[in-house]
Amino acid sequence: MATLTYPNLLEIDFGAIKVLGDALERNGISRPLICTDKGIVDCGIFDTVRGVLPNDVSPSVFDGTPSNPTEVAVRQALALYQDNGCDGIIAIGGGSSMDLGKGVALTTRHDGPIANWSVINGGREKIGKAPPIIAIPTTAGTGSEVGGGCVIITEGGQKVVIVSPNLLPKMAICDPELTLDLPKLLTAATGMDAMAHCIEAYLTPVVNPPAAAIGLDGLERVVTYLKRAVDDGHDRDARWHMMMAASEGAMAFAKGLGAVHSMSHAVGADEELRLHHGTLNAVLLPTVLRFNADHVGEKFVRLRRAMSLADDADIAEWISEFNAALGLPKNLGEMGVTADMVPKLAAHCMTDACHFTNPKQPSVHEYAEMFGEAIS
Amino acid sequence: MATLTYPNLLEIDFGAIKVLGDALERNGISRPLICTDKGIVDCGIFDTVRGVLPNDVSPSVFDGTPSNPTEVAVRQALALYQDNGCDGIIAIGGGSSMDLGKGVALTTRHDGPIANWSVINGGREKIGKAPPIIAIPTTAGTGSEVGGGCVIITEGGQKVVIVSPNLLPKMAICDPELTLDLPKLLTAATGMDAMAHCIEAYLTPVVNPPAAAIGLDGLERVVTYLKRAVDDGHDRDARWHMMMAASEGAMAFAKGLGAVHSMSHAVGADEELRLHHGTLNAVLLPTVLRFNADHVGEKFVRLRRAMSLADDADIAEWISEFNAALGLPKNLGEMGVTADMVPKLAAHCMTDACHFTNPKQPSVHEYAEMFGEAIS
Repeated sequence: MATLTYPNLLEIDFGAIKVLGDALERNGISRPLICTDKGIVDCGIFDTVRGVLPNDVSPSVFDGTPSNPTEVAVRQALALYQDNGCDGIIAIGGGSSMDLGKGVALTTRHDGPIANWSVINGGREKIGKAPPIIAIPTTAGTGSEVGGGCVIITEGGQKVVIVSPNLLPKMAICDPELTLDLPKLLTAATGMDAMAHCIEAYLTPVVNPPAAAIGLDGLERVVTYLKRAVDDGHDRDARWHMMMAASEGAMAFAKGLGAVHSMSHAVGADEELRLHHGTLNAVLLPTVLRFNADHVGEKFVRLRRAMSLADDADIAEWISEFNAALGLPKNLGEMGVTADMVPKLAAHCMTDACHFTNPKQPSVHEYAEMFGEAIS
Repeated sequence: MATLTYPNLLEIDFGAIKVLGDALERNGISRPLICTDKGIVDCGIFDTVRGVLPNDVSPSVFDGTPSNPTEVAVRQALALYQDNGCDGIIAIGGGSSMDLGKGVALTTRHDGPIANWSVINGGREKIGKAPPIIAIPTTAGTGSEVGGGCVIITEGGQKVVIVSPNLLPKMAICDPELTLDLPKLLTAATGMDAMAHCIEAYLTPVVNPPAAAIGLDGLERVVTYLKRAVDDGHDRDARWHMMMAASEGAMAFAKGLGAVHSMSHAVGADEELRLHHGTLNAVLLPTVLRFNADHVGEKFVRLRRAMSLADDADIAEWISEFNAALGLPKNLGEMGVTADMVPKLAAHCMTDACHFTNPKQPSVHEYAEMFGEAIS
């Protein structure tokens, strides 16, 4: 049976941030915890958002979000939330800040180790109500603003996926103005995250035609606008469409994701390498597309159409060249991943929630082979 | 600013009706009012649905839904709802039963003439909470199961559009099994309603890329499967895809609709003619497409692609021929609409909620001209 759900409310446009006051009032939030990171504070975006907060709202601020959110950081932010009697969350930033915000919302009312609430441990059914979240993305990639999922590194070092409709932000405020000064490399890497979402979601065997259509539409936007946004960060049209594509990518992954994500979650759990999720997805996409090619029916035809490619174009090859044109790494080897890490990485993949919706379920041996290919 | 909202939860598949018990429990409904019509009772669908109701649920039944729902019928059903202490609504049927169910949900907590709550009178902002609705479509066309809107003929004879997120069914249960025995002509007419939704929604100037993508996907399904469903009602694939297309059409019209609908609402308000909404949309589509052709930018290119038409194909002409192949009337004249009715019809259009999102706002004179063309 096909089950279709969609996010509640998204505002997108230059200047959309002005609706924040209304959003707080509508959701009964007067003492928000703002979850963000030091980069957002340093670049002035935090001040921009703070500037539109109504006078009667007194926020607390947690700006210690790590580049991949951890259970430790969630607990720190939770303490602030509880000490200050907060009644809702504003998450400002990339996927990390938004995922951290969801982690805080979860832990306000759900005790025990965060892994207890992961998809693998049946969290989707067990997670109850949580305080309201308003999500304000400052990158165009993760789409976490329209999803009920988050990825958190546990105290045990595992990267776990937690998903619940109760963690879906009540509102996503997508203001492309906030992305105009995003550096080239981060624009490229987050944009490729959106592409990975659109492609992987479309390819899962889960039946959800509206999500599939949205994914193809998002993919077309990424192919049309990402290079423009990288070349000229102040190309406002390109920034608008990339912001839209990012949200569309996450709306699409209501269909689930696949092995690109199980592999990038595995690598991304390494706290020493501290690798960027979107960059990992970009680099892993060609390898996984080749692995899936014989298990997706006619879907590559639709992908090619959305990407304006010739009927016989090699999609994997095209993405490798696109990555290069965007200035992204060529392979995992360039990013510091070595052959000796592969057995542990491959084992990690087998327990990742995204593994189960890949068109073809890879064995641990096949994951190891894919890592081998992606390293060199 | 672009505001995007989507329905909450939709289950689609053969046998989906089995989740009704769960749906009631999840929404706290133990004494539902079932809103339906005599046709649904006579053909046995009502018994099918009743058969899956849990034993501890005691429904009341209103089976007097007219072919275009009226305020009078809403008040009758409301009396039953109140007399029996109901706590929610199950709407089973085509658009009429579902719209009537929404009217009942509205009037349980909103007093005064129903027209007070219309879009034109600012209802969208004024309408508060309403009891939960579970929608079970038995046709594939209206898409009312995933929309927060309904169209009701007031006691004054006006066809008013009422829209609120609070009237959105908590859950849509789309079971194509219920449509297998739908007669050919009703299959054709409701299917063309879905096509009109997909096309009109896509063409409005409202910015909502996910809705646009869903509309194009729905359109492709209608073009691919409607004739098959008409030719062989038990073509299960065709019935599944038409049911999906119908929901997609209504998800798309989160973007609004246009002059096809303002015109068909005007004609449909005539209680003596009692014309079918989907048939009217089918017949009006070519005329309105010709009117809009120069005001939609490059959008016809996308429509042709979704419809698998040649680059220079005349979409309006194609739809006229498709209507003929489906056995639908050729024009409004065949349906009993005469030239003397035109001034009143044209005036009605100017106050219809859909008028304002047509790509080009027609004048009352232009509406009269379009009616003239569509009659002959």
